[in-house]
Amino acid sequence: MTKPLPQGATIGILGGGQLGRMLSVAAARLGYRTHIFEPGENPPAGDVAHRLTTAPYDDHAALTAFAKSVDVVTYEFENIPTAALDLIEDHAPIRPSRKALAISQDRLDEKKFLTSLGLETAPFATVATAGDLAAALVQIGAPAILKTRRLGYDGKGQVRISKAADTEAAFAAMKGAPAILEGVVDFTREISVIAARSLGGQVAAYDPGENVHKSGILHTTTVPAQIVPEHRNAAVLLAGKVLNTLDYVGVIGVELFVTHMGLVVNEFAPRVHNSGHWTQNGCAVDQFEQHIRAITSWPLGDGSRHADVVMENLIGEDIARVHDLSEEANAALHLYGKAEARGGRKMGHVNRITPLTS
Amino acid sequence: MTKPLPQGATIGILGGGQLGRMLSVAAARLGYRTHIFEPGENPPAGDVAHRLTTAPYDDHAALTAFAKSVDVVTYEFENIPTAALDLIEDHAPIRPSRKALAISQDRLDEKKFLTSLGLETAPFATVATAGDLAAALVQIGAPAILKTRRLGYDGKGQVRISKAADTEAAFAAMKGAPAILEGVVDFTREISVIAARSLGGQVAAYDPGENVHKSGILHTTTVPAQIVPEHRNAAVLLAGKVLNTLDYVGVIGVELFVTHMGLVVNEFAPRVHNSGHWTQNGCAVDQFEQHIRAITSWPLGDGSRHADVVMENLIGEDIARVHDLSEEANAALHLYGKAEARGGRKMGHVNRITPLTS
Repeated sequence: MTKPLPQGATIGILGGGQLGRMLSVAAARLGYRTHIFEPGENPPAGDVAHRLTTAPYDDHAALTAFAKSVDVVTYEFENIPTAALDLIEDHAPIRPSRKALAISQDRLDEKKFLTSLGLETAPFATVATAGDLAAALVQIGAPAILKTRRLGYDGKGQVRISKAADTEAAFAAMKGAPAILEGVVDFTREISVIAARSLGGQVAAYDPGENVHKSGILHTTTVPAQIVPEHRNAAVLLAGKVLNTLDYVGVIGVELFVTHMGLVVNEFAPRVHNSGHWTQNGCAVDQFEQHIRAITSWPLGDGSRHADVVMENLIGEDIARVHDLSEEANAALHLYGKAEARGGRKMGHVNRITPLTS
Repeated sequence: MTKPLPQGATIGILGGGQLGRMLSVAAARLGYRTHIFEPGENPPAGDVAHRLTTAPYDDHAALTAFAKSVDVVTYEFENIPTAALDLIEDHAPIRPSRKALAISQDRLDEKKFLTSLGLETAPFATVATAGDLAAALVQIGAPAILKTRRLGYDGKGQVRISKAADTEAAFAAMKGAPAILEGVVDFTREISVIAARSLGGQVAAYDPGENVHKSGILHTTTVPAQIVPEHRNAAVLLAGKVLNTLDYVGVIGVELFVTHMGLVVNEFAPRVHNSGHWTQNGCAVDQFEQHIRAITSWPLGDGSRHADVVMENLIGEDIARVHDLSEEANAALHLYGKAEARGGRKMGHVNRITPLTS
């Protein structure tokens, strides 16, 4: 058995947003320090990190100094340049591994990987040219969604195609970037599983949460999800399959559609996930600590839940509601310290706790 | 109604130990930054603070710069030099106020204050000379405990007097410091109430916890305490009386003895308290966030509890048990990141959560 990193060791985190912020707090709870690497000024994670490096990902001197100063490196987002990872890996291990990161960075590779495991996904086809798109639309049928293969999140880089006449504008919106056409899945619910795998291969999962999106951004996650036990089990098992196949270390978020035909995998994120924020107030070990435990060789928490929780994201002007929210009994606020409330910006979230029902 | 400090405002904290550390994390959860002032190197709170000043309390330039950089100042321990407080108060408000701090810094003033409110305390007498001690012992009777009036904590600065012959050694142990002789209270249980008062005068209290000490240091706090409802109510009411009389702002910890004659107040601490750590995993708003809410003008959490909790302190070599503890279901670890496990040093704590019983 590998021993956990000693008290006072330092975890490097690529990205200084709210996920890095909550990872820093969890690291502290296990006696670790964090060093944040983030190009932007005044990142939310900087408020609770032992150290902050403000530099772009092509500043090789800064990256090397960062990597040398830490014991292990993790990340809060997927789109990290390959050259930066190459540099870091010379000095410190990166967890989860680059394989998971590479697959999740490309929607086409991700879909191919998932289907290779026998998992259901939306029908998909690769789109490099306008001709590809026309052929793909015939194959998949409308409505369908054209997405850039890389660098999309929160509904960005996506265009819905309702009829064949939409293809030209949709293709133009990709601006020449390699794309993928995905069929629209007829689902009854969206759920996600937050699961983790340790260095020693131990796997643990939280109860699936039920997600509701607004304008392409997660609005609420409710636990427990209103799904049959077979789907709950299937969701956890397929997350385990993904983790084991990737020889994964850390927390993963797997988004699923519940359909009349069974579960369909939408996508996975090789990191802590917005739909796992409920664990902060529903579990003894939340997703952030679970991730830190995995990458620093602690035993994992078992994922057990001691309360029902509804997590609601506070987006943009929702921040004006926090005073009222603070007066609600059993509402736990988690704000990110962002001074400016731009539209669509995630400002915080609230976890509403109620007694365990199932 | 006063508006809360805006997102991104900075809270100054005097003291960089584990209480400052957990206050920093709670401040971040409400969108605030912290600036820690601490004479010692590498303080635990420095790992999760936006800014750290390492300087002694008589470095007036450092203190002034600190006070100018923050919007409000609070503290994690009582024994702050008066001159330092004078300097700070020229630039930022200190909460809780200096009155509460001054009373709690002196065991004699504290006892006088408590009895002036009609609250029961142990019998006590002031001791400045060996003659005072002899007379006090006759008045109070043995066994009794001789304590320095100032600067005592975790059983330090205390000598038990079992018989008259012990007085000479006990008096010598005070090294000339003003002292107080306290009668020993015949109690059945030790409990504490963690309560808070807002700037607007709102008062909220958590359920009393039952405390067990080992070698003068808190070992466990169990919630709910096994006490009759009358004692639970009396404990909460007397905490409110103390808070209102002091026009207090922030969290207070009041330690009580449960006796056959009713409740006897041992002492209060004008800050978050070790016996309130259970709230981190038992309440939507824990004592640290409650303190931050109070001093930054948020509405207080209502103190409601969603689980039973047993908090156990991890002292010195207990830190070697954390690997086993991390494998327990429903055990939430809170480590302080202290590299060196000296005897008697508080290294962390664990909160064991079970379903609500009452």
